Amino acid sequence: MRVAGRPMRTIWREGDDVAILDQRLLPHAVEIVRLRTVDDAVRAIADMSVRGAPLIGVTAAYGLGLALRADPSDDGLAEAAGRLAASRPTAVNLAWALACVRARIERLPPAERASAAFAEAGRIAEEDVAACRRIGELGAELIAAAAKRKRPDPVNILTHCNAGWLAAVDWGTALAPVYVARERGIDVHVWIDETRPRNQGAALTAFELAHEDVPHTVIVDNAGGHLMQRGRVDLCLVGADRITRRGDVANKIGTYLKALAARDTGVPFYVAAPMSTIDPAADDGLADIPIEERAAEEVTHMAGTDEDGAARRVRLTPTGSAAANPAFDVTPARLVTAIVTERGVGAATRSAIEALGRGN
Amino acid sequence: MRVAGRPMRTIWREGDDVAILDQRLLPHAVEIVRLRTVDDAVRAIADMSVRGAPLIGVTAAYGLGLALRADPSDDGLAEAAGRLAASRPTAVNLAWALACVRARIERLPPAERASAAFAEAGRIAEEDVAACRRIGELGAELIAAAAKRKRPDPVNILTHCNAGWLAAVDWGTALAPVYVARERGIDVHVWIDETRPRNQGAALTAFELAHEDVPHTVIVDNAGGHLMQRGRVDLCLVGADRITRRGDVANKIGTYLKALAARDTGVPFYVAAPMSTIDPAADDGLADIPIEERAAEEVTHMAGTDEDGAARRVRLTPTGSAAANPAFDVTPARLVTAIVTERGVGAATRSAIEALGRGN
Repeated sequence: MRVAGRPMRTIWREGDDVAILDQRLLPHAVEIVRLRTVDDAVRAIADMSVRGAPLIGVTAAYGLGLALRADPSDDGLAEAAGRLAASRPTAVNLAWALACVRARIERLPPAERASAAFAEAGRIAEEDVAACRRIGELGAELIAAAAKRKRPDPVNILTHCNAGWLAAVDWGTALAPVYVARERGIDVHVWIDETRPRNQGAALTAFELAHEDVPHTVIVDNAGGHLMQRGRVDLCLVGADRITRRGDVANKIGTYLKALAARDTGVPFYVAAPMSTIDPAADDGLADIPIEERAAEEVTHMAGTDEDGAARRVRLTPTGSAAANPAFDVTPARLVTAIVTERGVGAATRSAIEALGRGN
Repeated sequence: MRVAGRPMRTIWREGDDVAILDQRLLPHAVEIVRLRTVDDAVRAIADMSVRGAPLIGVTAAYGLGLALRADPSDDGLAEAAGRLAASRPTAVNLAWALACVRARIERLPPAERASAAFAEAGRIAEEDVAACRRIGELGAELIAAAAKRKRPDPVNILTHCNAGWLAAVDWGTALAPVYVARERGIDVHVWIDETRPRNQGAALTAFELAHEDVPHTVIVDNAGGHLMQRGRVDLCLVGADRITRRGDVANKIGTYLKALAARDTGVPFYVAAPMSTIDPAADDGLADIPIEERAAEEVTHMAGTDEDGAARRVRLTPTGSAAANPAFDVTPARLVTAIVTERGVGAATRSAIEALGRGN
């Protein structure tokens, strides 16, 4: 999508290396960082220079290429894959992308592995772009249906965190339908949950929508229920970090609260994600999905820019107070109206998800 | 309650004037401000130097005394009462306290009005302290019941915003039961919602509990549902800005989301408030309670202290992005387990609330 009018992606090959947009600095600065080693890739994922389930997967795939360039041995492969897999625990796309690359290169002679890994990473990236575009087209039909009922008023869409192109390679998952709806001339307005503690909504989703000229309003995470009660939200559209066989959805902390409000007020709650987000090994989301606990500092402090535009971090809490920081929660399938994937739109049920998996 | 070991209240007479603790600077600095005129009182309420439904009421009552000291005429009284009443719209205690003072002084000769108003304000303040203490005793019984089931583990209480002594004159409403439970040797731990946008949880509730040595952990507003799903919250305890005849509760934005999660996970959801918070003129909370819309800057910016301890504000959003800032939401009575008042603990139903009103 566009930044200051120019097309951009979140990750690409740059010479022999890999380049990423450093998302920790957004929306205040647009900086490109070069990843040269697997260490660089692990760090970029762990410190959230890149984030979002699909993008984490692609970055890990490229990271394996960087690792194999330095050490293409079986031991080198195993070690690098292990470190990349451990860089963040909740998004299943990470393990999936690593498995794709390993399956592709494991039986190759060491000398051919790095280039094959880069090629596979590139294929995964392009596949993600195509999947997101397709999610956009299918999701836009849901928005179009809502638009028919709302005309001449815009369709009000509430989203949580960032599941836009910054969370993928391009287009995004939850925001792709918004972009396609705009292409089709549908009048939309997006309520953006700021998404504490890391403010991916206020920082990243607002940045994306501002650069794509999509009307939007930032709200605190507390406000969505009130807006739904007052009829000011027509549908919720969020991404996912992992979806279980039965349709439970792990996504950014706070998603569950919005799903509850949507159910209580009769607002449809849609989850948009590529098929790679579905974890066939997980069934009961509360039992089977590990929830990342991140540093307390993300809660006790907040980053932004001061009046001179310089990056600054401020402390919010008394110095003696502890903080806890679970990064994801699980929305039970019963609260999800439908899941939008590149294979189609299905109910959050075992049978519907199986049917999507069979490509129907 | 205590600040650095010394007893303190939120508001008191100081010579002929009124003194308040400036809550905008907490938890980073403890500063006392002197209110000399009704303008000072209106500003202190509107800019949230004082906040919390009971404290707003007491401040308005004292503000009327300050106004009458300068102009004790009928016109002066009407004008000052109108300005104080308009300083914030949602908390009903404000209108209630002003009505108490007016009823007391209206028929007095102008020369006697100011001192009678100060006396009445002082009476309201003492009555609030007694009511909060009683709320604490009654609420502590609910905590004690939970403690029996939890022993030897502490009772985990989740609270939203600040409904502690900083929201009242002393003791507080939702936190008074916590303080009384501690007096009685009950082991408690409090999860504090940070409560964006103004962070009254992270700033004020954490400050209170730190100075009273109550174990606590600050969380983002998004995290409470996840903690309840995992059995890590035994009960929720919040304050209220207005309660309707049928038991709908207006409280800080985001309260509704926590009440939904409590209902979904079987966690009791208690609302603690003095009887002055019940608005006999309101029945349907969504229709009858005005919801204050505050400045967008509270969402787009965040205040805290920098690494040198200096107060700073940082911008979180892109400069072009709009923000909306509704300050309260309405929790429907069906989600409230019980209301804890100084008159007793009652269900959030018309008949139970009527019974409390009759003093039973």
